[in-house]
Amino acid sequence: MQTANKPGTIVDVQGQQDERQVAIDKVGVKDVTYPMILRTRDGKTQTTTAKINMYVALPHHQKGTHMSRFLEVLNDHQSEPLTPDRIPEVTKAIRDRLNAETAHFEASFTYFMCKKAPVTEMAGLMDYEVTFECERNGSDETSSFIIGVAAPATSLCPCSKEISEYGAHNQRCRISARVKFDGMLWVEDLIEILESAASSPVYAVLKRPDEKYVTEAAYDNPKFVEDIIRDLALSLDGDDRITWYEIDSENFESIHSHNAYAQITRDKSES
Amino acid sequence: MQTANKPGTIVDVQGQQDERQVAIDKVGVKDVTYPMILRTRDGKTQTTTAKINMYVALPHHQKGTHMSRFLEVLNDHQSEPLTPDRIPEVTKAIRDRLNAETAHFEASFTYFMCKKAPVTEMAGLMDYEVTFECERNGSDETSSFIIGVAAPATSLCPCSKEISEYGAHNQRCRISARVKFDGMLWVEDLIEILESAASSPVYAVLKRPDEKYVTEAAYDNPKFVEDIIRDLALSLDGDDRITWYEIDSENFESIHSHNAYAQITRDKSES
Amino acid sequence: MQTANKPGTIVDVQGQQDERQVAIDKVGVKDVTYPMILRTRDGKTQTTTAKINMYVALPHHQKGTHMSRFLEVLNDHQSEPLTPDRIPEVTKAIRDRLNAETAHFEASFTYFMCKKAPVTEMAGLMDYEVTFECERNGSDETSSFIIGVAAPATSLCPCSKEISEYGAHNQRCRISARVKFDGMLWVEDLIEILESAASSPVYAVLKRPDEKYVTEAAYDNPKFVEDIIRDLALSLDGDDRITWYEIDSENFESIHSHNAYAQITRDKSES
Amino acid sequence: MQTANKPGTIVDVQGQQDERQVAIDKVGVKDVTYPMILRTRDGKTQTTTAKINMYVALPHHQKGTHMSRFLEVLNDHQSEPLTPDRIPEVTKAIRDRLNAETAHFEASFTYFMCKKAPVTEMAGLMDYEVTFECERNGSDETSSFIIGVAAPATSLCPCSKEISEYGAHNQRCRISARVKFDGMLWVEDLIEILESAASSPVYAVLKRPDEKYVTEAAYDNPKFVEDIIRDLALSLDGDDRITWYEIDSENFESIHSHNAYAQITRDKSES
Repeated sequence: MQTANKPGTIVDVQGQQDERQVAIDKVGVKDVTYPMILRTRDGKTQTTTAKINMYVALPHHQKGTHMSRFLEVLNDHQSEPLTPDRIPEVTKAIRDRLNAETAHFEASFTYFMCKKAPVTEMAGLMDYEVTFECERNGSDETSSFIIGVAAPATSLCPCSKEISEYGAHNQRCRISARVKFDGMLWVEDLIEILESAASSPVYAVLKRPDEKYVTEAAYDNPKFVEDIIRDLALSLDGDDRITWYEIDSENFESIHSHNAYAQITRDKSES
Repeated sequence: MQTANKPGTIVDVQGQQDERQVAIDKVGVKDVTYPMILRTRDGKTQTTTAKINMYVALPHHQKGTHMSRFLEVLNDHQSEPLTPDRIPEVTKAIRDRLNAETAHFEASFTYFMCKKAPVTEMAGLMDYEVTFECERNGSDETSSFIIGVAAPATSLCPCSKEISEYGAHNQRCRISARVKFDGMLWVEDLIEILESAASSPVYAVLKRPDEKYVTEAAYDNPKFVEDIIRDLALSLDGDDRITWYEIDSENFESIHSHNAYAQITRDKSES
Repeated sequence: MQTANKPGTIVDVQGQQDERQVAIDKVGVKDVTYPMILRTRDGKTQTTTAKINMYVALPHHQKGTHMSRFLEVLNDHQSEPLTPDRIPEVTKAIRDRLNAETAHFEASFTYFMCKKAPVTEMAGLMDYEVTFECERNGSDETSSFIIGVAAPATSLCPCSKEISEYGAHNQRCRISARVKFDGMLWVEDLIEILESAASSPVYAVLKRPDEKYVTEAAYDNPKFVEDIIRDLALSLDGDDRITWYEIDSENFESIHSHNAYAQITRDKSES
Repeated sequence: MQTANKPGTIVDVQGQQDERQVAIDKVGVKDVTYPMILRTRDGKTQTTTAKINMYVALPHHQKGTHMSRFLEVLNDHQSEPLTPDRIPEVTKAIRDRLNAETAHFEASFTYFMCKKAPVTEMAGLMDYEVTFECERNGSDETSSFIIGVAAPATSLCPCSKEISEYGAHNQRCRISARVKFDGMLWVEDLIEILESAASSPVYAVLKRPDEKYVTEAAYDNPKFVEDIIRDLALSLDGDDRITWYEIDSENFESIHSHNAYAQITRDKSES
């Protein structure tokens, strides 16, 4: 390398030419922990801690990206806090600041919803794992946006119920969806769609009358992992806002040490 | 079981007598996800998402604890948000509501500190893992309280530096401390003590002049994992607020796939 | 540092004197992945992959330990494979090679047991998490040895069963024990003790008649997390080989997103 | 449900018709822990513990798959141990036993390679994460097969080296590749390709002369995450056996608490 390291002039190694003729699909920073402020469906706000990944596509001729600029873009926006509706703008800022064709932004965080127990209506906070993904291409002034949600729920086995004199094995499951959509879709909307596909939702607080209700409701609504994923697919098929989805359910079987799993991906524009 | 399940009277199974003569050290709820609000040393507040464990000691004669009451205690305090200074009070409320001799409360969460790069002074948010643990015994009206902090840092190997013509292997390490203390101890104080034991702190944003500074500073301050843990021990020995500590450092060696590790526990009242 | 870095003489940095007067409780290598061969109770052998930690206590006057020697001790024994009965000898070799007062050895690995379904007797492999811990003190020619086992199982809620017209929520739980013992204790013995404390064991393969059996057996044997831990304590109290135990159970509640947890530690020599 | 639960006739709930008209892409069992035996390039064998996922595509008209049959297929092969060359056959057996169009099999496990230190040639076991994925379609009598390998390595920052008077930050990185290929490709071949893309490989055991060598070698071979991924792409482009690859590198930056990341996917048949 011919560049000298003189005081006052610090070499820009990343900005040099690259001769290898290999473009990079995604390069950037991963697992940046950062606060976010979310607007909730009932008009309030919620502060959470996100894990953020930010990537750009790097053309073949450029040696390196400037990793610190990703962080600078995040920090630029500290005066105005990072909110989901500003993610497309941040993604655009990354693309522009890094002189890239394409920029990707991903944030994963815990989202709280206040949920009332089904009988006593005692309120408690339920937590969900939520992901926002945004991609912006050079010539395109629109962004593609994906919302992902994972919700815990109860599944009760139809086979176990059918063949047993009494009881039925049931377990916690984790239902998740990543969706593309038109118009307005609240995280809360998606959580409700996910939970309605299970044998029963789960709750933060349940008093005895609630526990009785939930136990019986799950027994009255037995579902294989196949049933959960199909009923979820039907709900998303019937929701005109949803244009694409990738859904799965993982059931942490109470009678095995392995899990039952089902997955469907569907692009509604192709059918 | 002779109890009948009549409509209108739901049996209190947990409240029944137990004949097994086995007391339980800790019983309760684990991995409750819950928001917390923290006061920072510079007079601001910070909202974070905590994983909370709440346990009581159960006397031998009682069949079960009432798990939902732990959640009720948390929710009672929703009008006033859960803040660290209210943890002793919440721990006492758990003990009282569960009729227990002893109650334990543990919360783990991400804590942010704004840190300036060493040369350009560009600001960025650093994230730390923090734990608060509180225990309250029956007759005792005081609580024992432990603050735990884990901080990422840089370690640079003195042996590698000494024996090599140029360069020295270095790596990210994770330094952590759990401490008991008298008086006022900010999380920020403990973070600063941890970071000063490493070859160099790490930063959220570093521009080129900062990267040069940090690279040279680490090279000028080589430390084995043994040096880090000893220098940390000396700092805590010299801080009169600290009465007990358990410290460790784990170095994610850049030349191996395993880690170097060191640990010291010390009760200062015993020396 | 006055040491010169001349060709042919590579300085022993770790062997130098340390002036800080701080002894280190444990220093060594963590998360070394290594194969192990286990003898099983039915007279066969089993090869597994272990995560190994090896530590020594470092006296205050010695600057550093020689990390590579831990690995050399492991590799010395490659001609004879690493088996559990050789762990005390390996621990002693670590203590001797590192000139330490005390040496610790910990290995965690998956252990398989062939288990037959309860009705069809179809065989399947169940996997368990097992830990061996050994400590050797300088003057003492015996080792302390701890076996740890974690087993998945089913728990069915007595309250849910009692108060509901039909059904009962149940879930996978994880029961674990660390024990000190006299004489011979097979991992398989401990697994059987753990599993018998649950509402039902779990299985690798269950055909429909087995699933019916397991569903009904769990319903006939409802247990709170408190019952599991107490019944496990009673079993270990009644086993004369066991001299000390630390046990816990974590139930992944199917009706909540948090877990129920109970824990007991007991030194039988103290009662 | 009209099916009666008579003694002697246990209803096949899964075998019933489904009216929802929703086909499922993948349904099956996840996280089955199971032993595997691997042939190594040097003609030996190695026993390891795998996490296995097995899925089939379920046609829209069938209510459920028979989860226990996946486990039965694994156990059928207990007389002959599960080896990688038998994975296509096992995948076919899953497809046939489950009456499915398509079957997927995935196994992830630790793989050991004996590696000699670069100067002293002291031998030590290095561990790598390896994945085998196989898919079999109905009409097609061939299988698609993917080998995945992740290897730890050292990366040393070219910018830090260039701009600093002395030293350069370096860190452990994790380089991984999933590849499709023609002919014979050993896991060991792929590991060597991955490691040669880094600033230096990492080792299990390094004595002082080795540590000096590795430190200087990394300093002489600085690489951004972009350089690692590009050099790896060039190696795979130049290897005629490889027909498709997905590669990434994640660098656990020693000066930050976040990671640097780069990723490339390429289908060589398309260029």
